[in-house]
Formats: sequence, structure tokens, C-alpha cells
Amino acid sequence: MFWGHSTQEMMDVPRVDIFREEPGRPAHPETFLSSQRGENGFAPVKVGVDFPVCVVLPAGGSGERTGLQTPKQFCLLMGRPLISFTIHAFERVSWIRKIVVAVAEENLDLMTSIISCFKHTKVRVVVGGSTRHRSICNGVRALGEEDKDEELDNKVVIIHDAVRPFVEEDFLYQITMAAREHGASGAIRPLVSTVIATTSEGFLDHSLERVKYRASEMPQAFMYNIIHRAYQRCTEADFDFGTECLALVQKYCAANAKLIEGPPNLWKVTYKRDLATVESVVKDTLSQSVCVITDGRSHARMLADTLHAAFCSREMEVNIIQEVMDGGYLLKTWNFIQFSMNTSDLARVETTFTAVEANGQTWLHPVVIIVVHLGTPDQWPPFAHLSWVASFRNVFMYGVHLQQSTDAESQEKSLSKVAELASALIRDRNRALAGQLLQAW
Amino acid sequence: MFWGHSTQEMMDVPRVDIFREEPGRPAHPETFLSSQRGENGFAPVKVGVDFPVCVVLPAGGSGERTGLQTPKQFCLLMGRPLISFTIHAFERVSWIRKIVVAVAEENLDLMTSIISCFKHTKVRVVVGGSTRHRSICNGVRALGEEDKDEELDNKVVIIHDAVRPFVEEDFLYQITMAAREHGASGAIRPLVSTVIATTSEGFLDHSLERVKYRASEMPQAFMYNIIHRAYQRCTEADFDFGTECLALVQKYCAANAKLIEGPPNLWKVTYKRDLATVESVVKDTLSQSVCVITDGRSHARMLADTLHAAFCSREMEVNIIQEVMDGGYLLKTWNFIQFSMNTSDLARVETTFTAVEANGQTWLHPVVIIVVHLGTPDQWPPFAHLSWVASFRNVFMYGVHLQQSTDAESQEKSLSKVAELASALIRDRNRALAGQLLQAW
Repeated sequence: MFWGHSTQEMMDVPRVDIFREEPGRPAHPETFLSSQRGENGFAPVKVGVDFPVCVVLPAGGSGERTGLQTPKQFCLLMGRPLISFTIHAFERVSWIRKIVVAVAEENLDLMTSIISCFKHTKVRVVVGGSTRHRSICNGVRALGEEDKDEELDNKVVIIHDAVRPFVEEDFLYQITMAAREHGASGAIRPLVSTVIATTSEGFLDHSLERVKYRASEMPQAFMYNIIHRAYQRCTEADFDFGTECLALVQKYCAANAKLIEGPPNLWKVTYKRDLATVESVVKDTLSQSVCVITDGRSHARMLADTLHAAFCSREMEVNIIQEVMDGGYLLKTWNFIQFSMNTSDLARVETTFTAVEANGQTWLHPVVIIVVHLGTPDQWPPFAHLSWVASFRNVFMYGVHLQQSTDAESQEKSLSKVAELASALIRDRNRALAGQLLQAW
Repeated sequence: MFWGHSTQEMMDVPRVDIFREEPGRPAHPETFLSSQRGENGFAPVKVGVDFPVCVVLPAGGSGERTGLQTPKQFCLLMGRPLISFTIHAFERVSWIRKIVVAVAEENLDLMTSIISCFKHTKVRVVVGGSTRHRSICNGVRALGEEDKDEELDNKVVIIHDAVRPFVEEDFLYQITMAAREHGASGAIRPLVSTVIATTSEGFLDHSLERVKYRASEMPQAFMYNIIHRAYQRCTEADFDFGTECLALVQKYCAANAKLIEGPPNLWKVTYKRDLATVESVVKDTLSQSVCVITDGRSHARMLADTLHAAFCSREMEVNIIQEVMDGGYLLKTWNFIQFSMNTSDLARVETTFTAVEANGQTWLHPVVIIVVHLGTPDQWPPFAHLSWVASFRNVFMYGVHLQQSTDAESQEKSLSKVAELASALIRDRNRALAGQLLQAW
């Protein structure tokens, strides 16, 4: 199973037509998500957790509400299924040991291929049940099969949704510690709408006082023995119609669940439009910084300095480096700019592409390389060919032709247009435009 | 006050730097929104309403939850403030007579300039109050000042949020007729999350049975006398802390509010990410069809036929027409493709631009013209200059250079790449790329 198609064209069906090679796993895969903290403003935590913590992700849903053929957890975002983003959010947390994903039987092969293609390492796949609770229960049981009793006594199980991709380490830590202390815990959010009770004839009965109620969200966390016991004791009706694990452990284990206000990015992909939102959030995150490679040339350094100013006014962080192997940028930057004076610089651009690919970020998200071309446009075709090759490896290369001028003002104006075009290309991350040479008039 | 900046760069502050000229109002402004019915699947209604219906839009909010400096109703989407989309959704409904917008005093000038720039015709602006209820109350009072008593006895007032831009005529009709029959009505939606009550110590008290409750959404509708009386009788505490008009009319007028299940696109822009969602929904709507202009030339007709097949496989509707003035396409299409054999065709492209602009759709949304260039690339600069002029009028022109070949297979491959590039350009609608000539290798 191969992945890597442009999302915008095919939000609903994972097609299988572009091969993406798979180099070694990124050394610091958490780089991406820890920079996503914008919307909630939480600080990162670096903690040790000296007891086992595992995750159950029910992913058996059919995605009725999105109106798509493909269940939403398998919909592609920039060539990668939504569930892979969620799995990655847990996998990057060092103290999380295992992630059990429960999928419908007909999606077992699909899920297995996702794990292999995106090199997930902590995942075990189990067959889900006919309802959400049955799927979670199967996941919890699978965790029980693997450990000795003394391990199980200590184990915390986090339950989350496959379609909430933006959960972060600091919040996982909070609910884990609360579950450890109180037996159960869960994320809550303020209500966005007023909640009302209706009469059987479809009229307003009464509206609830908003301050007294909260929306119950995911993740939730439980001591293994508590959630396991709750599922042993609950009824068929609970399995079929219940929605809340918190309610089950309250009813069957008298557990007192601690509620913790979560960040707004815990929200759940429910409708088709939400997939576009996820893509937009990811693209914003990937577009925050750019790394300009000078190859140690003074002319390139001068141009880079002017570009620096132009990018900063667009609120992008800019790093100027001499060569691509410098200082770990390959691991934390998704966007590169390099200069080409003429076709002999093709080799330098190729080196950047090879280095980017070898560092293996490319399967998580497409990486952008902008070649600022100072040669004549007729020297571009070899770069376009390289771009074409690169796009199959999820590296999108675009050219921007800088109008060279001895007049400082004209030169600055053209560089400012380079920055405008580069920002747009970096933000849109559009596979269809890879290999094009744009003019920075 | 001028508008028209690219959204992606500046979701948070309406800057004032690009002038967009304003031709006559579009003859059928409802064209856009009535094609947005995808997500709910409701059929359009063509109805007469023989009593006065007016709208109150409270828009005094400060947008705290978006984390943006600009209140969300004034954030720009493709150069146009969100509230203008919402106003347009009402203004296009022939039987809605007036829309009263209540804004904070400091935004009066901004709101006035929005009305003038986007040529809204049914709007009256009033100063809002310190809370949502005070703003609505001011709006309702303003409606009362204008009409005689017998008019008021018949009048239905729709109350909506400025930040729910996708409300449609059929649903407005339903809630209007329900208000007329029962005195009050409101939109409801199923709960997305379980609602729970918390203890004062932050633990789970109990969770509500999801089937018995609904989320109360907007719009709501009332007989004027009922909502007016409710505001006359309610307390300061209601004005300060109440959220639901339905609860007020129930309490103070014993009105029995009819609840109607609304479509999913009634959702409310709450967080910054929701602005990206609105933009994505609008862009999807604008990208559904393309009109290919052949200028009556047989070679262009042949190319158009091949393009037709390539676009259809991308699920875009294609119309092939001889000239731009044909059959009303200017009023219902947001995307045009035209061929240029050499620079003498510049005049034809200019005619299209002029016709598009004269029909005035351009202030609602950017219109895209793709010039499929069959001349040599060095003949492109005059088109690029025209594009540059056009982009200031919200018409984005892009060039795609077709590689001409006598080999049928190569030719078809290049045309297929034209369709791929054109689809991407049409979907992204990116101002920064206007004027560029891309290669359809």
C-alpha cells in the first residue's frame, strides 16, 4: 500500500498511485507536534513516568456524519491518513509504551499497511466491536493479555479518539497523573452552544444553565483494573447505547472521575469540513519557518540577508546557514531556500534533496525546497526534472526566478516578490505546482 | 476603506492596501450561496412570504476565543469580512426586508465602510450593548421605530449570529413559518459531545442522556411583539447573563418555541481554525465548475474538448462557450479558461476580463481566468501585465503554457497537465501567483 496523493483533490478516497520511498525514522519525530502548541499556549513538559501507560484508540467508526465513503480516520491529509497523525501524537511521547488500535475487520489490512508505510512502531491492531464501547473493551482486553498482574495493577490506560489528531504531551501527562491519583480522569471543555431539553412534540422544554455543565471530550484515562472491571460488569445495553467510559466506571466501580479542562485543539473531526481544518492547522504549523542555504557564497549571503527581512515582515522565522548539514536544521525545518546561479548548481540542490530525504521527515509531511534561480530561464529544465523526481518522494521543489539588477531598489523589490511567492508556495504545499519556475517581477 | 488582501497571510487584521473598484451589483447575487447546499442536501425553496420579515444580527462580540486581535466577524476571508458573507446570505433572500446589525460603538465606522464597499443594500447599523442580549434588544427596538403598529403585529424577526455565514433560504423559510405559527422557533442540532455536570471539586457528578438533549443553535425567529415584550419584561440579570432568546420568551411571554433540526452548516465560527474552514468551504464552492471560451476558433474547440474530459475526471463541471457574453455564464461561473495563440489574442483576454468585471461578481469573490498560452513564453509579459492590473480588481489571471505537439498522445498528456494546474490554481485562488506562466509539461 503506497500513499502520497494531494489531499485537496481527493479528500474522500485514499487512492494508491504514488510511491513514496521510506528512509529511516526521524530521530526526533516529536519536533513537529510540539511546535503545534500555538492555540492552547500550554508549556511543554519533560517528565519521567515510572509506571506503564498505554493507549486504546477505537477506530471502528464508519464516518457517517462526514458524508464520505471512506471512514474519516482513514481520509488522507497531504497523502497521509488522519489516524496516522493521531498515532504519531502518542508515539512521540517517550513514556507511552503501546497503542492499541481497534478497527473493523474489513479495515485490518488497510490499518496494517498504514502502520508499515508510516513506520509506526508502538502500535498493535485488534479487531473492534460493533459499537464504540465494544471496540474499546477489545482494546483494553488486548492490553491485559500482554502483561503480568503486578504490571496491570500499575497500568494507566488512556482512551482517545482516532479523529482527534492534535493531543499533546503536557495534557496527556495531566490526565495520566489524575487517573493514577483518582482512578479515572477525562478532558472537558466549555459548552459552545446552549443545551436544551425538548418536549416529545418538538418544543422547548427547558434550557440548561450553561455554567453548570461541560462538554465531555477525549482523552480520558483510567487505572487498568478500573476500566477493565467496568467492562466486565456492564450490561449489553451499556455496550450498545452507552457513550461515556466515565459514566461506566462511576456506575460499576464507584470511581470518582477527575475532570480537567483541555485545550481547544482537542476537538474531534466530525464533518467533511473538519478535514480541511486539520489540513489548514498542519499547513500553518509547517509554514512557520524557513532555512536559507547560502552554500558559503558571499553573493548568496547578501541575497539571504535581504530575504531574511522580507520573510520576517511575514512573521516567518528565518535561519541562514552555510550548508544543509548544519546544526540539525534538517530535523526541525520543513522549508528550505537555496540559490542557483546556473545549471552547475544543480548538484548543490540535489545534495539538499538527498539530505532532506535521508533524514526521513518526508513521510510525515511534504518538505518544500524553493530554488531561487539566478540563471536564465532556459537553464531551468534540469531543475524541473529533479523536482519531478523529488515530488514522488514527498519533497516539493519550486523555482523562483530572481530578476537581477544593479539597482538596489529594484533588486530589493524582486527579492520581496521572491519572499511573497515562497511564502505562498510553502503555505499551499501544492504537489501540482512542483517543478514550476515562477517569475519574481 | 478598501479591501481585497489575500487571506492566508493575514487572517487576523483587516489591512487596507489594495483598491478594488466597484461595478454594478450582480444581477443574481444569490447564485453563489444557493449552490452551497452540498452538505445538508436541502432543496431550494421558491416561496412568497406575504408578511414583513426582518433580521437582527448582533455583532458586538470581541472574539476572545479566536485569539485574534480583530473580532472574528470582521476577519477577512479572501479579502472580505466574515460578516459580509453572513449579511449576503440574508440579503439574497427576496422576502427579507431589512437586516439590523448591532455593533460596538468603536466599530461603527468599520461596519459602515463594509456596507458601502460590499454594496449591501438592506442593512441598518445600530450601536450594540455591553452584552449579547442588550445588542439584540437594541436591534429589535430599531425595527420597532420604523413601522406602524399594524405592520409590527405581523412582523417576524429572525435573530442570527454574524459568525454563522452559511445559513440558507430554505431553512430561514422553515423557522420563519414556525415563528409565525407558534410565536417563536429556533434551530437545534444533535449534541456532538456528551454533556456532563461537574461537582464543585471538579469531579464528574453525572452525565446527561444524549438523546434527550439538543444543542440550541441559530437562527431563531419570533413574532415581533413577543420578542419585544420579552425584552421589556426581562431583568438586568437576564440582560447580563442570559444566552437564550428562546428561554426569555418562554419565561416572560409563555411562548411555546418550536424547535427545528437545522443543517450542519449552521455552525458558528468560534476559533481561529474555523476561519480557515469557512475559507475552505467557500473555495470548494467556487471551484466546482469552469467555463472554457473558444472564441469560435476550431483549434481552440478541439483543445477545449480534450480539456473537458480531463476536468470531468476531476469532478468539475465544464461548459464550452464561443464567447464570454454567451448565456449568462458570467453570472454563475467563477472560473474561465481562454486560449491565446500569440500576443494579438491579448485583446480577447482583455475582453473577458472587462466582461467579468462589468458583471460585478468580483467583489463577492475573486474570479479566476486561466489563459492557456500556445505562443512562445517570451510573448507572455503583456498578459502578465494585464494580470497584474486585474488582480487589483479581484480577478486572478494565471497562464499555463501548453506544449504543442503533432503527436496526439503527447498533446493529450500536456492538456491533462493543463487541467491539473488549472484545477490547483482555481482551488487555491492565490493572489500571489497571479500573472505567472506555468508550464504544462
